[in-house]
This record gives sequence, C-alpha cells and structure tokens, in this order.
Amino acid sequence: MRLSEAIKNLHGKYKNDLTGDVSKSFPALSQVDPDAFAISIATVEGDVINVGQADQSFSIQSISKPFSYGLALEQHGHLFVEKKVGMEPTGEDFDSIIKLDDQNRPFNPMVNSGAIVTSGLIDAKNYATKKEELLQYFSAFAGQPLGIDDEVYQSEANNAHKNFAISYLLRHFKVMTSDFREDLDLYFNQCSVSVNTDSLAMMGATLANKGINPLTQKRCISHENLRHVLSIIFTCGMYNYSGEWAFDVGLPAKSGISGAILLIVPGLAGIAIYSPRLDKRGNSVRGIKVCEELSEQFKFHIFDYQTPKEISKIL
Amino acid sequence: MRLSEAIKNLHGKYKNDLTGDVSKSFPALSQVDPDAFAISIATVEGDVINVGQADQSFSIQSISKPFSYGLALEQHGHLFVEKKVGMEPTGEDFDSIIKLDDQNRPFNPMVNSGAIVTSGLIDAKNYATKKEELLQYFSAFAGQPLGIDDEVYQSEANNAHKNFAISYLLRHFKVMTSDFREDLDLYFNQCSVSVNTDSLAMMGATLANKGINPLTQKRCISHENLRHVLSIIFTCGMYNYSGEWAFDVGLPAKSGISGAILLIVPGLAGIAIYSPRLDKRGNSVRGIKVCEELSEQFKFHIFDYQTPKEISKIL
Amino acid sequence: MRLSEAIKNLHGKYKNDLTGDVSKSFPALSQVDPDAFAISIATVEGDVINVGQADQSFSIQSISKPFSYGLALEQHGHLFVEKKVGMEPTGEDFDSIIKLDDQNRPFNPMVNSGAIVTSGLIDAKNYATKKEELLQYFSAFAGQPLGIDDEVYQSEANNAHKNFAISYLLRHFKVMTSDFREDLDLYFNQCSVSVNTDSLAMMGATLANKGINPLTQKRCISHENLRHVLSIIFTCGMYNYSGEWAFDVGLPAKSGISGAILLIVPGLAGIAIYSPRLDKRGNSVRGIKVCEELSEQFKFHIFDYQTPKEISKIL
Amino acid sequence: MRLSEAIKNLHGKYKNDLTGDVSKSFPALSQVDPDAFAISIATVEGDVINVGQADQSFSIQSISKPFSYGLALEQHGHLFVEKKVGMEPTGEDFDSIIKLDDQNRPFNPMVNSGAIVTSGLIDAKNYATKKEELLQYFSAFAGQPLGIDDEVYQSEANNAHKNFAISYLLRHFKVMTSDFREDLDLYFNQCSVSVNTDSLAMMGATLANKGINPLTQKRCISHENLRHVLSIIFTCGMYNYSGEWAFDVGLPAKSGISGAILLIVPGLAGIAIYSPRLDKRGNSVRGIKVCEELSEQFKFHIFDYQTPKEISKIL
Repeated sequence: MRLSEAIKNLHGKYKNDLTGDVSKSFPALSQVDPDAFAISIATVEGDVINVGQADQSFSIQSISKPFSYGLALEQHGHLFVEKKVGMEPTGEDFDSIIKLDDQNRPFNPMVNSGAIVTSGLIDAKNYATKKEELLQYFSAFAGQPLGIDDEVYQSEANNAHKNFAISYLLRHFKVMTSDFREDLDLYFNQCSVSVNTDSLAMMGATLANKGINPLTQKRCISHENLRHVLSIIFTCGMYNYSGEWAFDVGLPAKSGISGAILLIVPGLAGIAIYSPRLDKRGNSVRGIKVCEELSEQFKFHIFDYQTPKEISKIL
Repeated sequence: MRLSEAIKNLHGKYKNDLTGDVSKSFPALSQVDPDAFAISIATVEGDVINVGQADQSFSIQSISKPFSYGLALEQHGHLFVEKKVGMEPTGEDFDSIIKLDDQNRPFNPMVNSGAIVTSGLIDAKNYATKKEELLQYFSAFAGQPLGIDDEVYQSEANNAHKNFAISYLLRHFKVMTSDFREDLDLYFNQCSVSVNTDSLAMMGATLANKGINPLTQKRCISHENLRHVLSIIFTCGMYNYSGEWAFDVGLPAKSGISGAILLIVPGLAGIAIYSPRLDKRGNSVRGIKVCEELSEQFKFHIFDYQTPKEISKIL
Repeated sequence: MRLSEAIKNLHGKYKNDLTGDVSKSFPALSQVDPDAFAISIATVEGDVINVGQADQSFSIQSISKPFSYGLALEQHGHLFVEKKVGMEPTGEDFDSIIKLDDQNRPFNPMVNSGAIVTSGLIDAKNYATKKEELLQYFSAFAGQPLGIDDEVYQSEANNAHKNFAISYLLRHFKVMTSDFREDLDLYFNQCSVSVNTDSLAMMGATLANKGINPLTQKRCISHENLRHVLSIIFTCGMYNYSGEWAFDVGLPAKSGISGAILLIVPGLAGIAIYSPRLDKRGNSVRGIKVCEELSEQFKFHIFDYQTPKEISKIL
Repeated sequence: MRLSEAIKNLHGKYKNDLTGDVSKSFPALSQVDPDAFAISIATVEGDVINVGQADQSFSIQSISKPFSYGLALEQHGHLFVEKKVGMEPTGEDFDSIIKLDDQNRPFNPMVNSGAIVTSGLIDAKNYATKKEELLQYFSAFAGQPLGIDDEVYQSEANNAHKNFAISYLLRHFKVMTSDFREDLDLYFNQCSVSVNTDSLAMMGATLANKGINPLTQKRCISHENLRHVLSIIFTCGMYNYSGEWAFDVGLPAKSGISGAILLIVPGLAGIAIYSPRLDKRGNSVRGIKVCEELSEQFKFHIFDYQTPKEISKIL
C-alpha cells in the first residue's frame, strides 16, 4: 500500500474516535473545534497529500521549539549553544521544568526552561527584529510566509503563570539576563505562530530532506545542525513519553498542546497530524495512533532499516 | 578510508593515552592491566578485524544487560516484559537506581534495578538450568561457547552492597518475589560472563545483522524483539551520558565498568573496544573517543542516513 | 480534675473506637489483639496509675530509638555521636529513609537509617555483651528487668527487607563498617524488647524526672544527654506528623508500630498508651487522641507554661 | 550573674568578631554598616536593657513572618489558616521553597511560599488598608508606632526574582488567586518594616508575656493563637538549622537576612540581636553565638525546666 492510501484509511478509521479533551491551558486554546482532524504528508520531492481540514489553522506551540533551537544553532554554532542548554532527556514533570543540570543549564531545549533560554539566544538588531527574524526562519522551513496569531499570543501571555515562574527562577539563578521578560515574550510569540497541517508537514519535509526546503530548494540549516535538531527531537520530543516513543515509533516527532504532532521520516517525508483532543500526557490522541500505525505498517522505525528499493514502493 | 585502516589508526593515535582509572568497585575489577587496549570489528558478513590484545578476556558486566533483556523478551514476549520493566531513559544516579516509575517498575532494563528484575524473569526448570540457559543464549550471539569467570563472580557477589540494597528494596515493594536472592545471584553470574573484544564484537554483529549470527547463520532474536533491544540500547545504553551520545555518536552502544564498549552499526557491523581506564561517568575513556571518531569519520550517525553505495565503500 | 480521673474518662470515651488497623509489617505484629487498650501514668514521685490491660506485653519497636540513642550518648558523648547521626527533622518517607545529609549522616536517630547507625555505635566487649548492655540500659529506665520477645525478633528479622536495604546502602556509602549485619541484628533485638504500659510509662517517668528513675533513684542519663534525648523526641518523634504534634500536643512523644505511644511531661510524668490499631501514618489512633486531649485539658503544651502551684493540683 | 550583666559581657566578647558577610540579596541590604552590633532585652515587666547601637534601624525581613501569621490567625482562626498553610518543618532549600505538601499547601508559614500565602490571607477593606492593618498589628506588639522603609521596599521589590517565581507557581497551582501580585507586594512591605533591637525586643516580650504587651498592657494575640505562633517559631524559625537549634538553644527564635535574631524566653523576656554579618545559612553570626551562650548560661532550654525561684534570680 502507498502512503497516500494509508493516511486516507487511518483518517477514516479514527474519524469517530473522540476520546481525550482539548487543552485548557488558556482560553484561546480551549475554544478550538475539538473534533478537527487533518493529516498532511509532504515528501522530500515536494509533493503534498492532505486528508481532512488541512487548511484549518492552529498555533504551533511546542513544535516551535526544535525550529528556534535550529535558529540558535545557525546563529551561534553548537559549541556556544550547548554551554547554555543541555542535551539530556528528562521527564516534563514539575522538577525537570525548573531544575538545572550540574552545569547550571536546563536539561534540553524541549522542556520549557530550555526553550525559553533558547529563544533568549536569538540575535537581531533589536526586539522587533528578533520576532521578524524568527518568523522568517520558520517561514523558510514552510516554504511560505507564516504569521503570528495575536489572539493566541495575548491569551497565552496572560495565563502563562508557570512560564513566568520558570523565567523568574532562571533569572534568579542568573541563567537569564535582565532582558528575561523580553525573551519570554519572544517565546510566547514563537508558540503563537499560525500553521496548518499542510505548512507544518512541509516544515518537517525540510528536516527530512537534509535541511533543504523541497519547494524553494533553499538550505535552511547546515548538515551538522540538522543532525543536532533531529537528535534532540528524537530523544526529547515527546516529553516523558519519549522513551516509549523511541521504542514503538522509532522516528523523531514533536507534539504541541494545540493538538498537533510533526513526524519526520528522514530521507522521505514530513507528516503533520492535527487533532486537538489530548491524552493525559498532553499529546494528541489520534495523532499518536496515526504515527504508531504508520511506523508499524511502513517499517519506518530507525532500527527497521530498509533498502531504498523498499522505500521507493511506498511513495 | 576503510574501517580496517581506520581502527588501526585510532589504536595508534590513542595507544599512549593513559587518562582515567580502572574501576575500584570490587577487587577482581581493580586488578586488571589498566593499559590494555583492543578494538575488534565483526561485520554482518562474518569478517573480523582485530587490533591490539583482542584475545584478552574480561567480564562483560553491564553489556550483558541488553542480551538478558533479549532473552526475557524471547521467553515472555514484550507485552509481559513491559509490565515488569519500563522503557524510559533516566540518569543512573542515586534516585533512579532505586526509584520506580508510576507503574511500580524500574525505569528501564539498563539501570541496575531494571537489569536485576529482568534477570529474575529468565525461566528454566531450576536455578542451575537458568544459568545454563543464559550462557547458551549469550554464546549463540557470540557464535562460540562462553563461560563465567568465577573469580570475578565471587569478588562481585561479596562487594555488591548497592545491588543487595536495590534487591531488598525491590523485594520490599513486592517488585521481586521471595526468590530475589537467587535472581540477584543470577545477575552476578551474568555480569561475570567472560568475553574478549573478538567475541563481543560478534555479539554486536548479530544485533547488526537483523538478529542472525553471521557465523552460524542462527537467528538469536526475532525481528520485533531485536528492534526493542536496539531501541533500549540507543536510548539508555550510556547512562546519563545517553542524551549526549545520541547527539554526538548517534548509534546504539552499551558500556560496562570492566572498560568495554559495544557499538552497533545496524546493517553493517558490531564494534567492541576494551580499555579499562574509565572517566567519571564510568565509561571507557579510549572507548568513547574511538566511537566518536568512527561515527564522525564514516557518518554512522542514524541521522546521517547514507545510501547503500556509500556504505559499501567503507568495508 | 486530676490526671487519674482524666485517663479513666478517656479510656471509657475511646474504648469502643475501633478505627484503624494493626500493623501488617510482619506476622508477629499482625497477630496481636487489635482491640487491646491500656493507659499508664508513672509520676516523677514513682506513683503509677493504670487503666485497661496494663500488664499486656508488646514489643517496644521504635520507642526503643531514643533510649539506644541515650546509651550511645552516654558511652561516647554527643560530640562523637553527632558526627555519625544528624539532628534535623525530616519526613519518614521513602527519600528520608535512605538519603543522607550533607555530612554523609542519616538525618536524625529517629528515622530507621539513623536508628540502625545509632545501634551500631553501642559498645561492649563482644556482640553478646552488646545485647546484654542494651537490655540493662533499658531495664534501668524501667526500674525492672526487661527481656526480648524472641518470636517478635525472628518474625521481624525475617521480613525486614526495607531495613536490610537501608543497611546495605549505608554500607555502600561507608557509613557503616563490615559489621553492619551484626549492627542491624542488634537493632532488631532492640525493637523486640518486651514492655507493657506499666513499665513503659516508668521509662518515660525517668526521662521526666531529670534522668533519675523514680523507683530506684538511679541516674540513667546525664543532665546534658537527657536534654538531647528530649529534644530529639520532641522534634523528630512522631515522623512526618512531628510538626503538627509540636503544634497541637507540644510535648515530647514517641510512637512505635506495635501501637504504643510514650508521652513525656517534663517534671511531672511519663504516660504510655497501648492500642495497636494504627492510622495511615503508623501512629496509634487512640493513642494520639488520648495525648491530644490530655495536653489540651491539663495545659501540658510547652508554650502553655504553668506555675508549679497549678501543676501540683493535677496530681 | 544577671541577664543585664551577661549581655554586656557577650557584647564585649564578640565586638571584634567580624566573620561572615552582609546579605547581597538586594542593594539596600548590602549597603548597611557590616559591623553594627546591638543587643536588647525587654522583660515581661516592661524593662528594657540595651547594649550597643540599639537605636540603629534595620528592616525586619523574615522576622515579620510569625507576626503576620499571628494576624492571619487572629482574623480567620487557625482552622481556616491551616487549610492554606501547613505546620511541618522543612529545609529552606530549593525544593521546599516551591514544593507543596500533599494538601497543596506550602509546608509552613516560615518558608517564603508559606509567608507569601499568609500575607495574602490578611483582610481589610482594600489594599491600602491592608498595609495599614498590618503596620498597626506589628506596632501593637512593639508598643510603639512602626513604619515602612521605602528604600528597602523598592530595592527588595525590584530584585525579588525568586519570590516572583514562587508567587507565579503558587498562582499556577491555584494556591493563590488573581490578586497574587498585590499579595506579594504586601509581603515586600511587611519585610520592609523598620525596627531596631529596642522595638524588636519588645515585640518578643509581648510573645513572652502571654500575648500582652508589657508597656501598653494590650492583648495582641489570643492564648491559643500565641501557642501556635510560638510553636511555629520553635519548629521552623531557623530554616534548616531549626533541628540543631531546638537541640542546642531550645527556645523559639526567628532570624532575618538583615542580620537580626529575635529570641523568646517564654514567661521572661524577648531578646533581639542585630549584627548583619551572616553565616552560610543566612543567620547572623554573632546573633547565634549570643543566643547559644545565653541559653547555656541561664539554662533557658525548654527541657532545662527551672523553678520560678531560680528564674527570679537572673532578672
């Protein structure tokens, strides 16, 4: 069976699965259509297959983290960045959100503390330019201009008590400088970037295509930094579900509380699923099922190494 | 450059690097030749390349863990095993050694608590048979009969205060049954299996060759269980260095305090390095350097996906 | 109202309160009469008032801890003892049982790790003599010869997985020496000393009477060490209930899982309650109620400082 | 020897002891005269003995905590207050500052989280009135009008990253309401109340005198709430030094990072020491020495129970 057929089948199979609840983290998130369900695949050839409401926009939330990490790596090099943020997996529980490792760094750029510090690393002439810089970087991955959903941004900024707490602690421990409120604001903006599964899948396809956007053929990230980004997504992308994920799905994937999951099949495609009903860990219920079945069916697991011939048959 | 040439160069390059100290965990470990240094590569074709004292025997220690995990999976299936031992990475620090996850399981089969529980799962008619069963399973991976170093076993059993503490706690929390002392003894035996880099590399080659021993062509582990074993080695094999390892080396590898590291290049080869001087994390100093340089030089990192043509050139 | 009348009333009031369950820690504990209920008061004058089955014997369990701590202080002085065991309160949860403070000491002599280390400090010519020494010391406080309940001892030693775990960890961290199994065995013996509320109340009266046994007029502990013993009972005697206890009852008290509580009213009396049904924290349900009401009624709280005249009226 | 003579001797003995450093928590604290040294004793009779710069004003800082706790108890009763803030001692380390107990409460009103929650309980018509209410309550204890040091307040509010982090977390966990920024501001005000050893000692004398100010004869706190305040000071007043303090000094005492310690001798006196050089735990170096020696010399330890006749000799 081909991928296009498979995702149609999976969309049909799970269409009526309405388990889980939308995030109640802040009002703008809780007011989305809970039953929306879309799957998009963007191949390294630039082809896109959509099923469901692939043009329904949603905020990128935590899926922004690997991309802003990529931008920090491109701007400063990994030797500088790894002085500020670690690379070790850790549960996304209370402790790991606020604890620092023995080098006074957040454990990795996928936990909130690490993501906020990473946003703070992004350089530009001034604050307005930073936001612009970040948007352009994300847009390059998508191969199309992306914007910020201001309503989501406002709602998030007004209710992010935990992220404020994290930032004040990071400031207290001198991990952040006196600009920390501005850095946190940039982080809220980055989480509020508006995408749909179509554009998100293409962001993933750029990662799957050795860092080159399949549509524009523009290189978005160096070979070495791409390896870092994929590694961190693989080891830390699914919070405290990361270990089981590496076991069962065996592919880099990142989820966000808006209900999206971005799955990267290196050398092949980016796959984006949007379905805002979440499980207790905050991952999209239907998103996880689709990823698991696709990986199983097409032997995508990194330790199910296939020949190129086998791979060519599924596209 | 070909692999055979590369490991000769690396052996020469690090021959005189005598940083680090041998483990002082128990007398039998501390009395080995600190400067021994051997590298062996066993390919999926069954070819072996040795540099240094490849016939110098040493105890397998923690590198036994993925193999006994494999045996437990073969005997009981992963659905049963995952009820007893989790799959989440965790630091090998004080807490993670003795803490259990929210399902009352050790975090994974690579931390001591998880490895002891896993050994306790191994089934046979009676205790003597269990030890025999385990030895035969390990020998099948090596393609040659392996034995237990009784001196190491005795020395380990007499000094394993921490492992006794772990076992009594597991018993207290009813994770282990009344046979727990016997299970722990089996674990000591498993750690004392005697190998050299030549036989250890072949154990790795079996994992790299889809579970089939390259010499005997005997299948040692099912396709599905192999994927589990490689996943757990990849995510948890290098203790709290696992995250950085996944970043820098990007290949499944397992280290032991006897000073050995086993590196798996799926589809290609098993690589064993023996050099008993350890860094602060308990990993072989020269072993880590050899792994890092090999991965960099030959683009072995799982996210440096190469074509089969590229791969064929290095053998 | 006088004390004698008050305890008769309280015994009557709570006689039919059968909430809580006896400890199931080991068989010998779980087989006692769950409904036994006795209260004894021994004054600093040597008078004893008993209500209920005051001659029903039970094992002293954790109430032994302050007395063996007293013996260690008498033998070595507090400067030596405080190098081995700390003085800070801590919850009796999983962590505090096995964690050590920043000076590599158990937090205090009332948690299990601290009590085992304390027992290990007791000096005598040989092991048999140690047990004898300890029994004599306890007997001096009781003003009568005490013995060990061998059935309890055996049952406890066979099921003390947690205490074995603690001891192996203490050995691993070199807090205990190679005699640690013997030290732990002494601890099991000390917990199995057989008392009844009559003898236990007199042990408390000795503490209340500036360290001099009211019957024999023999000094059992120096003024300075007594202050240490009362302080540690006050701050750490009721596990993670200690803070609330200091608040509500405001008197030094020690509980044991056999269902006894020993309450000290300095300058006045020792009060022992035995009622083996325990609450979730492992404290005697009726024991706690009796202590709370007595303290409230007679203004025994240390911050309800009374004049001697007021005190004389209640005896 | 009498108390007045003793404190003169102790002032002389430690005058030239300049070990320790002033707090660098925020600029206004770090700019005080590091060598200032004053001791004041206010007896329950209303007599005051001063040695050194007893009129040198300083901010009350954490010594405010038991008094605002007293006000919350007076306004709401302890049954209400104990639903919001616990009574268990805990170390003032990273974890305990931000962790909550199993009833979702800060551990006690002496750690920062508990103190901020307690300030938030203080009731008045509006925010301005709250500040007034609190100042009047503190003034009643001092028997004289107290004011707020605005420079200290500003400096503290601008640098309290840790306290902001705590408050945002408390808000995140819904322990505080949407007024949490106002509550935190009241807390900064309360810490900035300006006292000297003379007025602070009198605040202590009110606690020592069953809650009645010795000068004005006005009752400031009910008998029952006083017992609660003294209990919490005794068990939690000296941070993670509280256990050792209960052991060595055996009296309720509270320290603040401005370098003051308030010691209560129930039934006798309040003693205030000011000396801003702190030890590593943040307690006044000379303050601790003076308390230890006074307690030892006059047998003030609660378990060194003295007769009234003995006590009358020392005044």
